[in-house]
Amino acid sequence: MRIVVVGAGIVGMATAYHLKRIAPSSEVTVVDMMAGAGMGDTGRSAAAFRTIFTSRLNRLLAKTTIDFYKSVQKGGRNLSMRFVGYLFLAGEAETASLRPVVSELKAMGLSIDFVDPPRGVRAKVTEDEEAREMGLYDVETGILIRDAGILDPEKVLRYYEEQFMKMGGKAVYGVKMTGLLARPKKPLGIPGEPFAWQDYEVGGISTSAGYIEADAVVLATGAWTGDLAAALGYGLPLRPRKRQVFVVRAEGELKAMLYDDSLTGEGSMPFLILPRGIYIRPEPDEGNFWIGLADRRPYGFEETGVEEGLWRYGIYPVLSKYIPAFEGRTPHNAWHGYYDENVVDEVAIVDKLADGLYVAAGTSGSGIMKADAIARIAAALVLGESKAELFGGVEVPTNALAKNRCMEPERLVL
Amino acid sequence: MRIVVVGAGIVGMATAYHLKRIAPSSEVTVVDMMAGAGMGDTGRSAAAFRTIFTSRLNRLLAKTTIDFYKSVQKGGRNLSMRFVGYLFLAGEAETASLRPVVSELKAMGLSIDFVDPPRGVRAKVTEDEEAREMGLYDVETGILIRDAGILDPEKVLRYYEEQFMKMGGKAVYGVKMTGLLARPKKPLGIPGEPFAWQDYEVGGISTSAGYIEADAVVLATGAWTGDLAAALGYGLPLRPRKRQVFVVRAEGELKAMLYDDSLTGEGSMPFLILPRGIYIRPEPDEGNFWIGLADRRPYGFEETGVEEGLWRYGIYPVLSKYIPAFEGRTPHNAWHGYYDENVVDEVAIVDKLADGLYVAAGTSGSGIMKADAIARIAAALVLGESKAELFGGVEVPTNALAKNRCMEPERLVL
Repeated sequence: MRIVVVGAGIVGMATAYHLKRIAPSSEVTVVDMMAGAGMGDTGRSAAAFRTIFTSRLNRLLAKTTIDFYKSVQKGGRNLSMRFVGYLFLAGEAETASLRPVVSELKAMGLSIDFVDPPRGVRAKVTEDEEAREMGLYDVETGILIRDAGILDPEKVLRYYEEQFMKMGGKAVYGVKMTGLLARPKKPLGIPGEPFAWQDYEVGGISTSAGYIEADAVVLATGAWTGDLAAALGYGLPLRPRKRQVFVVRAEGELKAMLYDDSLTGEGSMPFLILPRGIYIRPEPDEGNFWIGLADRRPYGFEETGVEEGLWRYGIYPVLSKYIPAFEGRTPHNAWHGYYDENVVDEVAIVDKLADGLYVAAGTSGSGIMKADAIARIAAALVLGESKAELFGGVEVPTNALAKNRCMEPERLVL
Repeated sequence: MRIVVVGAGIVGMATAYHLKRIAPSSEVTVVDMMAGAGMGDTGRSAAAFRTIFTSRLNRLLAKTTIDFYKSVQKGGRNLSMRFVGYLFLAGEAETASLRPVVSELKAMGLSIDFVDPPRGVRAKVTEDEEAREMGLYDVETGILIRDAGILDPEKVLRYYEEQFMKMGGKAVYGVKMTGLLARPKKPLGIPGEPFAWQDYEVGGISTSAGYIEADAVVLATGAWTGDLAAALGYGLPLRPRKRQVFVVRAEGELKAMLYDDSLTGEGSMPFLILPRGIYIRPEPDEGNFWIGLADRRPYGFEETGVEEGLWRYGIYPVLSKYIPAFEGRTPHNAWHGYYDENVVDEVAIVDKLADGLYVAAGTSGSGIMKADAIARIAAALVLGESKAELFGGVEVPTNALAKNRCMEPERLVL
């Protein structure tokens, strides 16, 4: 079987790896328009992970993926994984609404606990007049998830890539997919086939460097997938959502904060989520914080590029109120990327679009932490299986992530 | 309450009408970028309707809408409605798979029956060698739906528009929406508000002719909605799907076929659906057939314009095999338009996107036949109701068409 995987991000590369692993005799080729693997949004991720969700499927996808990465790292391959934890700073209302969720998850044996807000955080922010005027609210509790942390997505990607190449996989970089090759199932030998009344199957792709024939094509094209699939005639509920990361050096008091590992003992503070969607991702190896905002701004954002104003007016005023040590600090670096957002339920889609055509996309900001499971489901689907075996042996139906599923709503939204 | 409805197609105009009807003191303004109402895809519809579906919600939406139109027509307003029926020509496999569906619907008292294929149709198409080579299959049965037919969408639209204007509604044409006005819920009086950390509400729209302030904005923007909402920061599972209609004069034998009303007695043949997604919509007032194709071509289609090749290579070869009287006929007119397709389940979306912002779109080719019900749900939602009363008095929750609903799959797909 000849399979083309379009997209050498973490989902595409993991899918290629698992295809080759499950079906060693298949010819698997990864095609990417960039000059190498992981040059799209994989390398732009904030690269944090958690394994605790209320939705059983979310839990399975993340937990088995993280367990797989952990096993790779235990095997001697450094993925810069650190289980520093997630710490969500909740106000009074959030604490109240999440209390039953936390109890429920704890009762399942998961490590989620209420803790005191860490040193450096001004929990009683409303003592500040400006903060009050801004409508900020006090931090009531911290919610700590232990089976969570940070990793280096490029190292994970390189692992998949190397293993894939070792098994005889092929990768073609700098080549852009331009269309699908559709062929009639019963060819008549007339130019222009397939016509609208003929049953067709996808038989490969056209690219900037010629045709690549295949028995199956997998679109693992991340934030490009929605528009790409639409142009090919397939509607998917996917849209890119812009995200920006600002890098601030941990100096002075901030340095102490960065390396305060009193909560999880992993050499760094946890991944910290402040009120108003601001998160601080520790980068202990480089002595930095990565700071971002899970915003839903419907107004005035720029299509491309980093917006300095987002830091200055959107993040800094809130950040410096809750953590006064950030006062006067500015980012020395920043980048932007895109979530590949499933606009219906924010969970990935793995589906068959036509005979010979598959999609594995829509990771909605959880691509790194769910890639291995998504890839195993995609590989099994392409290989005609009705079930996929995730790392650790749990099986899920290969239609679990079909675009028209009814998803159990996630209640642990941080 | 000031409400702006963006889009003067059938959904927008019906929504404006019902808003004014339910809340006569509200100020409702319809804004459209075209020079008048119904100049988008409303006037490009194939304008056929059926009221029979297996999904209860689909049935409610279509049946109450058609009953409303019927009551308008009975009240003396000609909407060119004719209950000519739907006649679906099924092959052996389709007949077998639809038999239990037909029994189930009949048991509910709905008028759906197996009938013989009509005169003029070559049911045993495989007696023709070319047809066999093309992979065409014999017509086994016809499935006739009686509470179905054709109408004139522009006349329906004019009715809503006139009633809306009579009640004091306003319409502004030739004005294009360019953005939303977002305002902080607690203004600080600082330029640049609302910032990312402020709670906001939508307070109107910006247009090519200035601002229009409003307490609520309704996007009833049809096939433009997916891209428009995405540009504003709201993801919806909507994409345009191109559709084309070819007009063929009913001359000679075809004339007899067009006016053969032996099945439903309404002065015309039924709306006829052939194998391979080709449909023939009778236009008895003008002596024409409107012919189209419910295609899913993933290859080689042109973005805009009518494609003569679709008639020549996609429709004609099949049409002339099943109905030999079409041999040698060519269209004397054609147009194209777009379905506003909900890519997940092909049913409309009525939802609140933010405080002050609503959407009523995604009609997926069923806009004309469901517009009244969709508009009643949208109007009730905007007015803060938890239930909407459809024509005839049935109530549905106003979240019935929320974008993240779990829709009962439709099994009567023709």
